[in-house]
Amino acid sequence: MEYRIEKDTMGEVKVPADKYWAAQTQRSVMNFPIGPSGSMPIEIVHAFGYLKKAAAYANEELGVLPAEKRDLIAAACDEIIAGKLNDQFPLVVWQTGSGTQSNMNCNEVVANRAHVINGGKLGEGERPIHPNDDVNKSQSSNDTFPTAMHIAAYKILMEKTIPGIEKLRDTLQKKSEEMKEVVKIGRTHLMDATPLTLGQEFSGYAAQLTHGLKAIKSTLEHLSELALGGTAVGTGLNTPNGYDVTVAKYIAKFTGMPFKTAANKFESLAAHDAIVESHGALKQVAVSLMKIANDIRLLASGPRSGIGEILIPENEPGSSIMPGKVNPTQAEAMTMVCAQVMGNDVTVSVGGSNGHFELNVFKPVMIYNFLQSAELLGDACVAFNDNCAAGIKPNHDRIKMHLDNSLMLVTALNTHIGYYKAAEIAKKAHKEGTTLKEAALELGYLTAEEFDKWVDPSKMIGSLD
Amino acid sequence: MEYRIEKDTMGEVKVPADKYWAAQTQRSVMNFPIGPSGSMPIEIVHAFGYLKKAAAYANEELGVLPAEKRDLIAAACDEIIAGKLNDQFPLVVWQTGSGTQSNMNCNEVVANRAHVINGGKLGEGERPIHPNDDVNKSQSSNDTFPTAMHIAAYKILMEKTIPGIEKLRDTLQKKSEEMKEVVKIGRTHLMDATPLTLGQEFSGYAAQLTHGLKAIKSTLEHLSELALGGTAVGTGLNTPNGYDVTVAKYIAKFTGMPFKTAANKFESLAAHDAIVESHGALKQVAVSLMKIANDIRLLASGPRSGIGEILIPENEPGSSIMPGKVNPTQAEAMTMVCAQVMGNDVTVSVGGSNGHFELNVFKPVMIYNFLQSAELLGDACVAFNDNCAAGIKPNHDRIKMHLDNSLMLVTALNTHIGYYKAAEIAKKAHKEGTTLKEAALELGYLTAEEFDKWVDPSKMIGSLD
Amino acid sequence: MEYRIEKDTMGEVKVPADKYWAAQTQRSVMNFPIGPSGSMPIEIVHAFGYLKKAAAYANEELGVLPAEKRDLIAAACDEIIAGKLNDQFPLVVWQTGSGTQSNMNCNEVVANRAHVINGGKLGEGERPIHPNDDVNKSQSSNDTFPTAMHIAAYKILMEKTIPGIEKLRDTLQKKSEEMKEVVKIGRTHLMDATPLTLGQEFSGYAAQLTHGLKAIKSTLEHLSELALGGTAVGTGLNTPNGYDVTVAKYIAKFTGMPFKTAANKFESLAAHDAIVESHGALKQVAVSLMKIANDIRLLASGPRSGIGEILIPENEPGSSIMPGKVNPTQAEAMTMVCAQVMGNDVTVSVGGSNGHFELNVFKPVMIYNFLQSAELLGDACVAFNDNCAAGIKPNHDRIKMHLDNSLMLVTALNTHIGYYKAAEIAKKAHKEGTTLKEAALELGYLTAEEFDKWVDPSKMIGSLD
Amino acid sequence: MEYRIEKDTMGEVKVPADKYWAAQTQRSVMNFPIGPSGSMPIEIVHAFGYLKKAAAYANEELGVLPAEKRDLIAAACDEIIAGKLNDQFPLVVWQTGSGTQSNMNCNEVVANRAHVINGGKLGEGERPIHPNDDVNKSQSSNDTFPTAMHIAAYKILMEKTIPGIEKLRDTLQKKSEEMKEVVKIGRTHLMDATPLTLGQEFSGYAAQLTHGLKAIKSTLEHLSELALGGTAVGTGLNTPNGYDVTVAKYIAKFTGMPFKTAANKFESLAAHDAIVESHGALKQVAVSLMKIANDIRLLASGPRSGIGEILIPENEPGSSIMPGKVNPTQAEAMTMVCAQVMGNDVTVSVGGSNGHFELNVFKPVMIYNFLQSAELLGDACVAFNDNCAAGIKPNHDRIKMHLDNSLMLVTALNTHIGYYKAAEIAKKAHKEGTTLKEAALELGYLTAEEFDKWVDPSKMIGSLD
Repeated sequence: MEYRIEKDTMGEVKVPADKYWAAQTQRSVMNFPIGPSGSMPIEIVHAFGYLKKAAAYANEELGVLPAEKRDLIAAACDEIIAGKLNDQFPLVVWQTGSGTQSNMNCNEVVANRAHVINGGKLGEGERPIHPNDDVNKSQSSNDTFPTAMHIAAYKILMEKTIPGIEKLRDTLQKKSEEMKEVVKIGRTHLMDATPLTLGQEFSGYAAQLTHGLKAIKSTLEHLSELALGGTAVGTGLNTPNGYDVTVAKYIAKFTGMPFKTAANKFESLAAHDAIVESHGALKQVAVSLMKIANDIRLLASGPRSGIGEILIPENEPGSSIMPGKVNPTQAEAMTMVCAQVMGNDVTVSVGGSNGHFELNVFKPVMIYNFLQSAELLGDACVAFNDNCAAGIKPNHDRIKMHLDNSLMLVTALNTHIGYYKAAEIAKKAHKEGTTLKEAALELGYLTAEEFDKWVDPSKMIGSLD
Repeated sequence: MEYRIEKDTMGEVKVPADKYWAAQTQRSVMNFPIGPSGSMPIEIVHAFGYLKKAAAYANEELGVLPAEKRDLIAAACDEIIAGKLNDQFPLVVWQTGSGTQSNMNCNEVVANRAHVINGGKLGEGERPIHPNDDVNKSQSSNDTFPTAMHIAAYKILMEKTIPGIEKLRDTLQKKSEEMKEVVKIGRTHLMDATPLTLGQEFSGYAAQLTHGLKAIKSTLEHLSELALGGTAVGTGLNTPNGYDVTVAKYIAKFTGMPFKTAANKFESLAAHDAIVESHGALKQVAVSLMKIANDIRLLASGPRSGIGEILIPENEPGSSIMPGKVNPTQAEAMTMVCAQVMGNDVTVSVGGSNGHFELNVFKPVMIYNFLQSAELLGDACVAFNDNCAAGIKPNHDRIKMHLDNSLMLVTALNTHIGYYKAAEIAKKAHKEGTTLKEAALELGYLTAEEFDKWVDPSKMIGSLD
Repeated sequence: MEYRIEKDTMGEVKVPADKYWAAQTQRSVMNFPIGPSGSMPIEIVHAFGYLKKAAAYANEELGVLPAEKRDLIAAACDEIIAGKLNDQFPLVVWQTGSGTQSNMNCNEVVANRAHVINGGKLGEGERPIHPNDDVNKSQSSNDTFPTAMHIAAYKILMEKTIPGIEKLRDTLQKKSEEMKEVVKIGRTHLMDATPLTLGQEFSGYAAQLTHGLKAIKSTLEHLSELALGGTAVGTGLNTPNGYDVTVAKYIAKFTGMPFKTAANKFESLAAHDAIVESHGALKQVAVSLMKIANDIRLLASGPRSGIGEILIPENEPGSSIMPGKVNPTQAEAMTMVCAQVMGNDVTVSVGGSNGHFELNVFKPVMIYNFLQSAELLGDACVAFNDNCAAGIKPNHDRIKMHLDNSLMLVTALNTHIGYYKAAEIAKKAHKEGTTLKEAALELGYLTAEEFDKWVDPSKMIGSLD
Repeated sequence: MEYRIEKDTMGEVKVPADKYWAAQTQRSVMNFPIGPSGSMPIEIVHAFGYLKKAAAYANEELGVLPAEKRDLIAAACDEIIAGKLNDQFPLVVWQTGSGTQSNMNCNEVVANRAHVINGGKLGEGERPIHPNDDVNKSQSSNDTFPTAMHIAAYKILMEKTIPGIEKLRDTLQKKSEEMKEVVKIGRTHLMDATPLTLGQEFSGYAAQLTHGLKAIKSTLEHLSELALGGTAVGTGLNTPNGYDVTVAKYIAKFTGMPFKTAANKFESLAAHDAIVESHGALKQVAVSLMKIANDIRLLASGPRSGIGEILIPENEPGSSIMPGKVNPTQAEAMTMVCAQVMGNDVTVSVGGSNGHFELNVFKPVMIYNFLQSAELLGDACVAFNDNCAAGIKPNHDRIKMHLDNSLMLVTALNTHIGYYKAAEIAKKAHKEGTTLKEAALELGYLTAEEFDKWVDPSKMIGSLD
């Protein structure tokens, strides 16, 4: 490979000749060979594009950066935002805990790319833009990286996670309405219980996701607060007056999202409770989805020796050895995602709890886990929706069979003959393998007419409105 | 011990003669000898007191229970609420996962106690109140236990957790104002950084807790939704018309808190996402408090070989072997509580994710962990506040010593001579063990006057408003 | 309440007149009103009894404590070990993170109780035994508390956890043998699969627990290492020569367990990896038991609308509203315990990871969670064993019905006609609701004789040895 | 893109013309667009290479596969093992929970690649090897995927994790010996305590890792058990006699690792306790490394306002805004890795606990997290070793300053004048800011000569052997 020489305050470093990054990025590549390269999420890189551009605009507006420099920086940033420079960001999550090296990676790429945009040749001549003094002007890693975290987190929630969950919730709601009147046996403790409708069952799933969406949305305001302007320790050292508000304004403008400067910059650097808070809501949704997906695969179990009350789409051969087998694979992908998110929540919490003084240095691992959870949940909801939920149908035959056999319809008799006598009927039928009615009549606690009038599943399901 | 005979639908059971509980409670005592007896939280027992009383009132209002029965039930419930019958609830958390046996424990105690209130003798004569048909009327364990969970959770948050956190937050805020102008060295990556004031540092702590309080409060609405009226599977079987709204009205009245009937009862029985959600906010606060308590013990470390920038109250001898030792014990209690809450969050999530069909059967373990977290956080905040935070004082001598020695004041030169020359100065001073000024002058990058004017910690801390 | 005055190095404190504890215990009571009083596990108190007695013996043997003092200390310790002084230990888990105050609680109780044993009157006269200089001789909280942790942990594993798990494992193994030849349908992905026997299914459960027991036992050696002799920071300051080995010898003698002095005392004070390691094995068993208990409740689900292939004992009425309902309550208690242990593992890990320098100060919370997990697992295994596992019986009718209907028997044809043609048969039968044989013959891929010969469940289950 | 048509039992699918995979892989690509493509760990792909080759050898040896087929399969597998076909495995973790589609991906790639190796043209002509009937012969996804899990897990532990940890442990041990006699102040509760040597402090770190290595190695035996031969549900249906032992023999031979057939195949398919167990040991090491890395960054904190008792290598500029700043970046990378592993442990446990009946369907997520933890720990240990630990040096000036100032040397007086008088001396010196000696003499408890003789740090550190 060919190299050129780049310098930083520690001296010279050899950098691949065709790459825009410079000395500090290269040092990080060499010092942190931990896991696959490039593991720093690309969403963070793109978020840096927005914030570096916004910083240039704010600096220019406030008179500390010439307009030509602003425009050169912005041009390079636009390429980052557009994904054209993705291969210029080789760093890993497992670097310095402030993300300093990813901030410098961006500073270096913008400076060198601006040089080329400006007609220069990479590695030759005087660069018009300095990575620290210009691209990083009025900034520190300590306020840029958490700003990038919030931008990336907010964006993925709005663009992927929330829409994905909403799509699935809407389908479950629609199914709930479609199957509103399909009376079936209820199950509590996995045991037969009093009846409800399949639509009622699904309405619970939709309600869970509606609550989860509300919980996620409640966390957006904390996420909308940006650290930028706090610089090294939160005091805003080396920023022009009004910078924090101005730069947040530009970030809001460029992203189209309601970002604002954080009320307390010390909190924004030293803690990432907004990430902890928001991931907590993602974890809640994972808990809900685990329940929903589990129910759906249990309801679809069989086809002959399980519960089998719903039919789900058959998307692929299910077994490499058992011919004709079809499995609830979307539920399996979903529940694996949920397990991942539940673990990620612990990682985020451990990281969030271990900050010291003016800086939390678990930033990269926190946002890495956050973005993974947000992406997986969003994607999994869409896959589950399209390939499973949307195609769910009641299996009327089995539903009817289960309902007709159930002993728990006896509950309807409580208000007529009391709990104890009702229990006697159920136990007798269970023991003798008969129907409830047979047992009831044999015990003489009510007449056949009374039984038929009182024990009517369609009247045991409450109001369907 | 003396016994009397009680019966349920399975037959006869011997019960201690002087206890109000009956057959089903006793079966549970015998079948679940798991961990210390009586581990079911007393807050749940008291919550059952409220809900059984409210159910009696609603049943009477809706015409399905005579007023005399209502009053007898209410009288017994009032004793439960007042804590007079605490020793009548021997059951453990590790019972049936719906809490059925604790519901029956309450039904049985109310029935027997009402009999005695009514002038009867325990174990003799006909009881005026039946545990299932009267006390449990229009109810199921499946809707009462989650209702008790929400009542207990809401109450403890309002009465203990939130006030405790607010108390500590207010103290930290007050300390922040008191120490507003105490300029000190900042620390990032545990390394010396640019200055800020001690007040600014503490303002970050207060901001964390303010965000945490907001997060907890955001979860109250979901918690205010009550399952009661859903009965066995959410359909409301065996309840009179309008019962769910009416019973919630009485619970709100008796507790003085804004409870309301749940919009979707299927969700309320089958999932406990409200508990997951709310505990997620408690976990967020634990994450914040871990950071805050860690910072405070690090700031107080020493007295001679640590950081020592603050003084904390000396509450007890710190060592059984090292005479005169004083330790940050309140911070230790607090961080242990935080570790507990972080683990409890996993228990709550695992429980919440494992419901099946119409019923989640991890109810007791979920609320047990929730109440433990809520109580410990509230108590620990108060103890930490009273015995530590309120007595924090700056140690001005050490603060000044650190500030005067710091090399990171060099950052103020960036905007005058650029990052690279500033770095050269800092490195030279570090290597040679000199002051920044000496190094700066020797390198000739600025004059002594310029140095004194530009490198002024009191100008590096931003606005203090 | 009546009080007497006790003193420590900080001054005077009022102590309840009838209690043996003194000033430092009382300060802890006042400074840490966090959660229920007395939450420090009693197993730790008893372990302190062993170690204080052993220390007195070692000190006497090594010539630094008179025999009369040793005997007085030992007499008081024997009462602690026997549980006679349980009410003298009011402290909570949420105290100083080294457990210093519980160590002092023990020192104080022993000193005062020895005074009374010696004929003195509590609070009057000169005590023959000094809490620090005698009871705590050659010790520090920093080495006593972790020693108590290991004693308590080792003991509960040997006396409760391992026997409990073994009991259940043995029952599952016995059931496996009993049901060795009960051929039934297998299930993968919750879907019908090829057959196995119920005994084979249960053999997997037994194998899981056998592996878990092995994992727990692997951790005993690390737990057998005692910190005692390290004193304040691990160097053994203020101990006579040979003390660490001698005191471990006495602890081994008094407990009857193979304790030995730790190879590296610095590790023993500063980290509690032995607790982390051993709790990791408990968590593994919890993961296994969650699977086993889930399977058993699913196998027992029904009675008419579930899988219903096994029958489990009916221990109590299952519902307060649904008459005659019986639920898998032991499985529910067990899975709640498992959720608790999984969360406790996080608490233990967070505590273990947060030590600083020479001392981990999450000792009380770590051992509190450890002991809870160990006790709950042991108790829950016994309850589950006695009230559920031991009474499990196959439900032959349903087993046969499921087996006869299954489509996955088609797998036996793979080696005769190939996977693709076998799949065609299964799909056809599934679609048309017919038997496999009908579909196979219709497609003409084999003869009736071949079908009967090749598709024989009893030949599809491998060797039963 | 160009396509060819491939078929499976469900029909035709368009596959990229230049890829070796076929219909079922392509269905999975389409059905599971969840997260980045190709997230199934490459270690699993390589492990499949070993096992498919071993299966072919075993099948040939046992007479159910012709030698020519064996050789073709083996030739394709050798390419997989060598990493030449890495781009033929596009599937994600978030697929079916049995990994069926990755098994089929391998079956398809081997079949098509064998066709080409045999001189055929991809997508044309009759393939000599059938993906199900030949490559998958005597196998099921249900036994191949867990076998691949164990192979991949065992290999990474042996080749990366254990060597990485050992390297760091050896360095810490070497540092411990180098700094054996550097007497320094101890710290407990972050507060000054009695002295020890820097070498003693580091010996604790080395001991932690030695224990951790032992814990990991204890889990290898369970990991060495292979599921292969269990096929669909553990019974070994469709395998020739002796297959399980034979195939394990070949896997052991090809990998050079001591794999053997699992004693109980039902456990091997239905549970992944070996993965839970082994990851538990990884988590233990993460807990240890979190402590060690935290200590090292605290010891290195400063350079002027921290503890500063050790010097660590300066690897890169530490700040984009603070010139000359150097940070403990390797410790930060390491602690982030530890946080990740602690969260992954929860994911692994949740996955492990949620199996049903004959099959756990969280296989991919479990092994994904396992391999990430194993790789990150191994890599991070090496990076931390090379770029930090190996270069640690004592900062003698600060160590001496702290030691000379310490008040806790007073502990040495306990055995001479008693704990209470010693405490008085320490408190007086602390309050008045004097030395211990001054305070001691002023109080008149001992002479200057006695003080100098008794209070000698070099005698307070125990034996250094």
